[in-house]
Amino acid sequence: MKACLSKLQGWLKVKNSINEELKPLFYPKSVAVIGASNNPAKWGFSIFNDLLIKGFKGDLYPVNKNEERISGITCYKSVKDVPRSVDLAVIAVPAQIVPTVMKECVEKGVKTAVIISAGFREAGGGEKLEEEVLRIARQGGIRFVGPNCFGIINPFSNLSTTGLMSLYITPYVPKGSVAVITQSGNLGTFMLKLAFERGFGISKFVSSGNEADLHFEDYLEYMAEDPDTKIIVGYVEELREGRRFSEMAKEITEKKPIVILKAGRTKTGHKAAKAHTGALAGSDDAYGACFKQAGVIRVREIQDLFDVAVTLVSQPLPRGKRVGIVTGGGGFGVVAADMCEELGLEIPQLTQGTLQKLNQRLPPRWSHSNPVDMVGTMEYSYVCIGTLLKDENVDSVLAISSVGSPSKIFDQYPPAIRNQLAEFAEMMVEWESTRGVTGLIERIRKYKKPVILAAPPTSREESEAIGEFEKNGIVVHPTPERAIRILAYVTKYAEDRKRKSA
Amino acid sequence: MKACLSKLQGWLKVKNSINEELKPLFYPKSVAVIGASNNPAKWGFSIFNDLLIKGFKGDLYPVNKNEERISGITCYKSVKDVPRSVDLAVIAVPAQIVPTVMKECVEKGVKTAVIISAGFREAGGGEKLEEEVLRIARQGGIRFVGPNCFGIINPFSNLSTTGLMSLYITPYVPKGSVAVITQSGNLGTFMLKLAFERGFGISKFVSSGNEADLHFEDYLEYMAEDPDTKIIVGYVEELREGRRFSEMAKEITEKKPIVILKAGRTKTGHKAAKAHTGALAGSDDAYGACFKQAGVIRVREIQDLFDVAVTLVSQPLPRGKRVGIVTGGGGFGVVAADMCEELGLEIPQLTQGTLQKLNQRLPPRWSHSNPVDMVGTMEYSYVCIGTLLKDENVDSVLAISSVGSPSKIFDQYPPAIRNQLAEFAEMMVEWESTRGVTGLIERIRKYKKPVILAAPPTSREESEAIGEFEKNGIVVHPTPERAIRILAYVTKYAEDRKRKSA
Repeated sequence: MKACLSKLQGWLKVKNSINEELKPLFYPKSVAVIGASNNPAKWGFSIFNDLLIKGFKGDLYPVNKNEERISGITCYKSVKDVPRSVDLAVIAVPAQIVPTVMKECVEKGVKTAVIISAGFREAGGGEKLEEEVLRIARQGGIRFVGPNCFGIINPFSNLSTTGLMSLYITPYVPKGSVAVITQSGNLGTFMLKLAFERGFGISKFVSSGNEADLHFEDYLEYMAEDPDTKIIVGYVEELREGRRFSEMAKEITEKKPIVILKAGRTKTGHKAAKAHTGALAGSDDAYGACFKQAGVIRVREIQDLFDVAVTLVSQPLPRGKRVGIVTGGGGFGVVAADMCEELGLEIPQLTQGTLQKLNQRLPPRWSHSNPVDMVGTMEYSYVCIGTLLKDENVDSVLAISSVGSPSKIFDQYPPAIRNQLAEFAEMMVEWESTRGVTGLIERIRKYKKPVILAAPPTSREESEAIGEFEKNGIVVHPTPERAIRILAYVTKYAEDRKRKSA
Repeated sequence: MKACLSKLQGWLKVKNSINEELKPLFYPKSVAVIGASNNPAKWGFSIFNDLLIKGFKGDLYPVNKNEERISGITCYKSVKDVPRSVDLAVIAVPAQIVPTVMKECVEKGVKTAVIISAGFREAGGGEKLEEEVLRIARQGGIRFVGPNCFGIINPFSNLSTTGLMSLYITPYVPKGSVAVITQSGNLGTFMLKLAFERGFGISKFVSSGNEADLHFEDYLEYMAEDPDTKIIVGYVEELREGRRFSEMAKEITEKKPIVILKAGRTKTGHKAAKAHTGALAGSDDAYGACFKQAGVIRVREIQDLFDVAVTLVSQPLPRGKRVGIVTGGGGFGVVAADMCEELGLEIPQLTQGTLQKLNQRLPPRWSHSNPVDMVGTMEYSYVCIGTLLKDENVDSVLAISSVGSPSKIFDQYPPAIRNQLAEFAEMMVEWESTRGVTGLIERIRKYKKPVILAAPPTSREESEAIGEFEKNGIVVHPTPERAIRILAYVTKYAEDRKRKSA
């Protein structure tokens, strides 16, 4: 008992210290960019400009021994010359110089660092250099991200050290409640692109690189306590502290879901991972067992990470695996039914009450069963979804539309015909109305059941309703198959939690 | 021998006759829309207007006993009143009236019909009505599509009877070489949306509905001989003439690939199919065996249909399953390697010559193996893809990019910074240049190996290169996983063909 308590205290101590130690990393009062440059071919150029563009609110100091000014701002020869204290040093200089730069950081009393520079452990013969940098930083009490990474983003402090990579994405980073920890910078920014284009934001982003000092597990621990983070998604090639991960994750998932894409599943993938980050041991089965035991949601594709995360954050968990399906056409129902069965979801019979209600609204030739084929009467979509949400046999609702709003497409037609079509467009108002969206979101909350939507991607630009859904965190998937895959992940997670708490 | 010859002659006769019989359907000189309407709530409204908008070149006659003019054009009380001969009657009147209308069509000498109207076999008690219509049409020698369908599209004759459904998609239908036969109208138009938004066109489109007269097999036979069709894609719930399909498909796939999504794979899906089109028998295993024997490519998701078709039409078949991979970041390589192994593709070692050539161009820290991680130097993408195409160990190339062109994104930044960034944008010109695209397409032809591309969807609007690729029929997939899935289908098809001809 005593031993257990002391272990707990020890762990709590580490916990506090990580959260203390990483505060100047994610919320620095001052940032020095070492290797800042006026040359657009250099990382230091894009990192410094990105910090400027994103509107970092603290003090920002360019450091470069060959320049007087960078982007019009006074430049310092060494970080030691910076007139005030430095919370975070972003280092983008050639690998060979990093030990010297790190020594200067220690002398300056810098608290944290992000080493963007590559050419360490991942390159042949770079292990020693990396160990030297780690030794200097440890002695000086500096915690650091990387090396060989894209760095970090914190939209809550207007901070981004990812430079060009985030320039490619967007000039601003939407705030959200998803924290991203990635062992691949490129793959991480790809994820952000997929998310940002739909307006889904992040709470934090870390590209962990070689993890010489800070490990995936450290960031995980930080995000667990971060008040802006409600869910944690990760891309993993190798966990350096498997046992620590396993113990922490078990606790964290009680409060915040963790969604992970673990790559290197196969022999070929594992070989590629070894070439990439030098990932070593751990059979895929071992990882699988660890994730399962810790309640981690393991997904198979990059796109799944955010889709699952956003759905878990924005919608209630389904109480079971019985799916009510609403479609504009029967073919969708058949495709959906196949996929549901294959992924362990059920398509229940609807109650007599539901059938009667639908009979009152839909044309006589509707399917009279689940999937509900509205036989082309898209104007009843919200009514049907609402009716299924109420049905006690239904735990979640999947709605598949093949159309967006006609109004914007009609703009492409000659004026004479456009006027004629205006009346038709009126008929579609219910499906397209943002009032409809608001009503549905209210019903999702009232009945505490999730609704998963699919509509083809062209509808995205056409449809105000789709924009409104996604603004409220309700993903509109481009195909029914993708929608069902995400619903299956979410349902499995809900069932696992139910079993655990039973 | 004699028996065999007479069987062949018999079959040839049927073949000729189907192609003769369906000519007035797809290339009518005159079309009557029975049920044409000025009321936007009616199908007859949207069908008639759609024919007008799409610019049908032949004679167009609205028929409606209650109207004098439809959309300003003289309207006839009955098809019998139309002053000239009618090749195609599009019928959009309540089901009960269809037998009468069909009788009038027979009396008029109409050649073919499309029955849009629903309320037949798919609705309880509608079987008799459907049989009556079929009997009348057969006696009068009229072949017809439907009932309960969205009709047909032929962009080569500016003909579309799909009405509103194609209004939703686009005011024009791009011409292409993919024929679509679908047993679900909604799912069919969804497919078209996915295709048209990327500029991929069609040769013909048929929503076959209840198939009272013309069956899936009839359309298949027609498309096999259609000179504008190079590949046939189909959505199937039930084949009414399994043996005929099997015999025909075996011959057709020697010249034109057939790609099919067969739904109703599972018990639940089969039940839903029964509710939808009344699909009856045939275990999924039986369909699977039939497709395999006939060389039909069976896909699992709606989106796969066009992606596979366009790739087969636009690119050479891979000679084997060895994939060369080019990525901007190592994480993509790991994810790709996993998926390749899982789908039966191989990641070969590169030749010494290739490694040497890449050493000359890429920074020293590149991966030095397949997958080729260019460590962020996207400007060498085309060089690397070209080098892998030349490698004798490589049968196809997969390239994964995480960035599009910076130039368009930079427009969002303040002018001061924008000017600074212009120089950086210059550096990316090679990857983004349409010259680069043209060069790559030339190399694909020269080395007779396909190239599969993945880039995140946001790049689509940013990138002129992506537009240029897709204009040339080279699909740019939104995720690496989708790209590999399509490459796996295409590779399996190529291997099957090789085995067959060996």
